[in-house]
Amino acid sequence: MKNIKTISFIGAGNVATHLAKSFFNLGFEIGQVYSKKIDNALQLADDVNSIAIDNVMNLNSNADLYIVAIKDDSIESLLNKINDKSILITHTSGSVPIDILPKNGFINYGIFYPLQTFSKSNSINLSEVPFCIEANQHENELVNLAKQLSNSVYMVNSEQRKKLHIAAVFACNFTNYMYHIAEQICKDNKVDFNILKPLIIETAKKIELNSPLSVQTGPAKRNDKEIISNHLESLKYNDDYEKIYKILTDNIIKSTL
Amino acid sequence: MKNIKTISFIGAGNVATHLAKSFFNLGFEIGQVYSKKIDNALQLADDVNSIAIDNVMNLNSNADLYIVAIKDDSIESLLNKINDKSILITHTSGSVPIDILPKNGFINYGIFYPLQTFSKSNSINLSEVPFCIEANQHENELVNLAKQLSNSVYMVNSEQRKKLHIAAVFACNFTNYMYHIAEQICKDNKVDFNILKPLIIETAKKIELNSPLSVQTGPAKRNDKEIISNHLESLKYNDDYEKIYKILTDNIIKSTL
Repeated sequence: MKNIKTISFIGAGNVATHLAKSFFNLGFEIGQVYSKKIDNALQLADDVNSIAIDNVMNLNSNADLYIVAIKDDSIESLLNKINDKSILITHTSGSVPIDILPKNGFINYGIFYPLQTFSKSNSINLSEVPFCIEANQHENELVNLAKQLSNSVYMVNSEQRKKLHIAAVFACNFTNYMYHIAEQICKDNKVDFNILKPLIIETAKKIELNSPLSVQTGPAKRNDKEIISNHLESLKYNDDYEKIYKILTDNIIKSTL
Repeated sequence: MKNIKTISFIGAGNVATHLAKSFFNLGFEIGQVYSKKIDNALQLADDVNSIAIDNVMNLNSNADLYIVAIKDDSIESLLNKINDKSILITHTSGSVPIDILPKNGFINYGIFYPLQTFSKSNSINLSEVPFCIEANQHENELVNLAKQLSNSVYMVNSEQRKKLHIAAVFACNFTNYMYHIAEQICKDNKVDFNILKPLIIETAKKIELNSPLSVQTGPAKRNDKEIISNHLESLKYNDDYEKIYKILTDNIIKSTL
């Protein structure tokens, strides 16, 4: 059982910042903070009493865990530059498979993936953020570590993580786009989009305790053909909205009949 | 200026119940409660110290305001049966135009539409529910009345109300369906849907202060072709999900480029 006391961060962006500060506040030592921009590394290092580096060759082997939190498409070339392949190394990406780590020569590795949208300025309570963990060994250590930050820690393998990412595209990215269309329809008709916000929050809260299909409402769910054709008529001015309304309505009718 | 002290309810369902109880608690007198099922009328009337009736012919003219809160497709035939056309009458429907009231002979009328999903058991804080008001006269009285229940009261005409309803289909009904697809993808791959719930709530909360398009994230927003084709490949097992993924991704790319 590896005892994790010192953690080094490769990356000084939103995810690295939230994790490093939280670990620091819990009493962990933050060994080094790497960023290719030394100013970013210095800023975070300063906050967590750590040492900033901007050359990954200067990464020492003194930390018990290395967390790579950089852009997906920079991960591989960075891993390549790390000399000591015996360190315990994890990355925080939702979409990069775990294989990238052994492929680059590492023998102790895992995933430490917090599933939330972070922005540097927003303070996010990590205790409510789900962490998805995967590891070739030291799984228990990573799970215990995540449990110190969060109340929801899940074992998720790379294949499941990929599917989770697709599900998140529907539940979050596409949902946000639905909000956008709603706002646009409001703007087009000089209606205040704020009127819809309480209903939007309520819709999201409802599924905390209910399966979404069981609380589906609206004209499609009721198969209310008069309202549906009325709405489609109103949306004729925007081909895309009309198509989206149609395909989603057809799918809801099919799923709830 | 009409002084509204006594309100009668036509309907004893979710909306009528929430409104009647709130008005009663504010010190209003609830004149009569009509429901075609006397048990429902009695249950609500009992709670708000009112008189239950199950024949609309027995509706008296003593109230200062009548609120019709019944199913959309029952409104017209009910209005027909009310004898005194001089009463101040409103309905609470999001999709029925105001015209239905003068069409049935009324001369003092309006809309008193709370935009929220109500269920009888759920206690909803009306102060956060947006009320949409429209009236041929007595507009000020209805607005002032709504302001006693809620902090957000809007003047919305019937044409705007219809567009608001279409916007709500996107922002709420279609959004809920996105949640359903996400849950289904999780189930198909034995991943716990609960992992996504904090992100879903955060996505909804984000637009309280931001325009949705400005906080759009995901592979489509980044126009990340590799991830997108990867996701589409994974969704091949379900034609409908693949099509929805494709049309929404194409639209996001077009809107955010």
